[in-house]
Amino acid sequence: MSLPASFDLSAWSRAKQSQVEQALAQWLAVPALTRAEAKPPVALIESMRYAVLDGGKRLRPLLVLAAAEAVASAPLEPGPGGAGEAALRAACAVELIHAYSLVHDDMPCMDNDVLRRGKPTVHVQFGQASALLAGDALQALAFELLTPGFDCIAPQRQAQLCGLLARAAGCAGMAGGQAIDLASVGLPLDEQQLREMHRLKTGALLLASVMMGAACAEPTPAAQQALSQFGATIGLAFQVVDDILDVTADSVTLGKTSGKDAQGNKPTYVSLLGLAPAQAYARELLAQAAAALAASGLPDTRALSGLAERVVSRSS
Amino acid sequence: MSLPASFDLSAWSRAKQSQVEQALAQWLAVPALTRAEAKPPVALIESMRYAVLDGGKRLRPLLVLAAAEAVASAPLEPGPGGAGEAALRAACAVELIHAYSLVHDDMPCMDNDVLRRGKPTVHVQFGQASALLAGDALQALAFELLTPGFDCIAPQRQAQLCGLLARAAGCAGMAGGQAIDLASVGLPLDEQQLREMHRLKTGALLLASVMMGAACAEPTPAAQQALSQFGATIGLAFQVVDDILDVTADSVTLGKTSGKDAQGNKPTYVSLLGLAPAQAYARELLAQAAAALAASGLPDTRALSGLAERVVSRSS
Repeated sequence: MSLPASFDLSAWSRAKQSQVEQALAQWLAVPALTRAEAKPPVALIESMRYAVLDGGKRLRPLLVLAAAEAVASAPLEPGPGGAGEAALRAACAVELIHAYSLVHDDMPCMDNDVLRRGKPTVHVQFGQASALLAGDALQALAFELLTPGFDCIAPQRQAQLCGLLARAAGCAGMAGGQAIDLASVGLPLDEQQLREMHRLKTGALLLASVMMGAACAEPTPAAQQALSQFGATIGLAFQVVDDILDVTADSVTLGKTSGKDAQGNKPTYVSLLGLAPAQAYARELLAQAAAALAASGLPDTRALSGLAERVVSRSS
Repeated sequence: MSLPASFDLSAWSRAKQSQVEQALAQWLAVPALTRAEAKPPVALIESMRYAVLDGGKRLRPLLVLAAAEAVASAPLEPGPGGAGEAALRAACAVELIHAYSLVHDDMPCMDNDVLRRGKPTVHVQFGQASALLAGDALQALAFELLTPGFDCIAPQRQAQLCGLLARAAGCAGMAGGQAIDLASVGLPLDEQQLREMHRLKTGALLLASVMMGAACAEPTPAAQQALSQFGATIGLAFQVVDDILDVTADSVTLGKTSGKDAQGNKPTYVSLLGLAPAQAYARELLAQAAAALAASGLPDTRALSGLAERVVSRSS
């Protein structure tokens, strides 16, 4: 297959982000959430929408869609029954899990953060009880999105996607990583323990984004293995850069309170390696991610590779 | 089919409860939760086990198993690939959702309860942050249980079970009901609004228990409709009896703080109808549930009918 001469990551991202925004807004609307037998309370939906819409870089959804396109070797058209519909639902489901984790993570009993994406956090805006319930309902909604009628997504794919997402979100994934994080404040972690914590806390969901995207098409075993390597590597890179930004960026640019980790005496890659070595490590991981893509045998991985670069060079 | 002459609900329940206890303990053990690429933190697993094991009447799992047996018209043998394995996983998945909802519901920002099943609540025992994460991880684990290998449960059944559970747990189900409950403290609800709240808060998961059990076998449309009616009715009956017990039982019998609703000025069936009419309503609902079973065309619904009676006559 010959590739189109140029690839514009910004244009690609904008188009996909707008598709994701629109889909999220639609699936988080009252009519979409209302069933014949039960009408969800509008106040709950409002807090869920606040937590999810109009914010965020949508990195995880973009990874899902880029991985799906890379494996399908074609742009994905939305519409019931195809890989495009599955990928769009998977993209939004991953984002709902990410959004719920931020809502719960910001609560007073966890990080007690008042600012997120430049807005008051959900519990500041709606109260703690509502934040708790909004997060709980968002996690469930992620699995609702993945289980539409069988004419929309084939049952085998629904089951695969639910399995990947549940494991990435649960105790051997995101929630487990947060528990390690919680237990490690003020403790001296070595680099291996720090990497293990982040592999679960942030890495699992980023890896799942790539693998769920791949599962929407039909990856060869070689492609699947290479993408798994790619996903794990950018998951790690993401966290290294997060730690760097906590030191180098201000709260306005970050859209959340900066310097929190240092203040909280949390172990980070910067506190462990120093700033310049952490920055070098991030660049090394980017090279590893590129090598994984090169080994995938997939004809066009430019969106994935562009997203990896964006992970490392981002300023917020 | 001729039925065995006698049915001993107590013996049936004890056998099934022990099967469920054993399965939950096994699936909540460190080895079962550890993956090649990630090891969950032991402290998190400990709080999850505390929330789930050695407690509760396991009503929802029993409903799943009773419905599955009623539809299969045979005792279910466990073992990969069969309806028995699917039903046992579905039974445990529903219980995990129920357990997580109790953990979050007991937290200070919600009901602020310190006693549950006669033990200190999870946040009292482990701290609020751990309770929050344990609940989050239990919800994810429910979907992990429903998505094992395809040789264990057929993909179509996995997808169906995930879809039923997600919708029962989410904003048009349990979480939505809790949000209505939260918003209605001190407000004058009429009977219809009260019923709507409970249909979501408690009813959705009880109904899902019955429907998930049915989905593990191959129900006829008539049986499915009748079981749906049965599930909705006992869901309602359960809440009416809960409101009665809040007034008539003491904390020791209840295993949780009694009189909370009255103190919190929450609307209940007792505050709305009075005690004796609420008791009569519960008996009427039991008769409706029996009628639904009679209309199901299923040859043996004695376990389901016994569980419905137990819902209404329970003392805790």
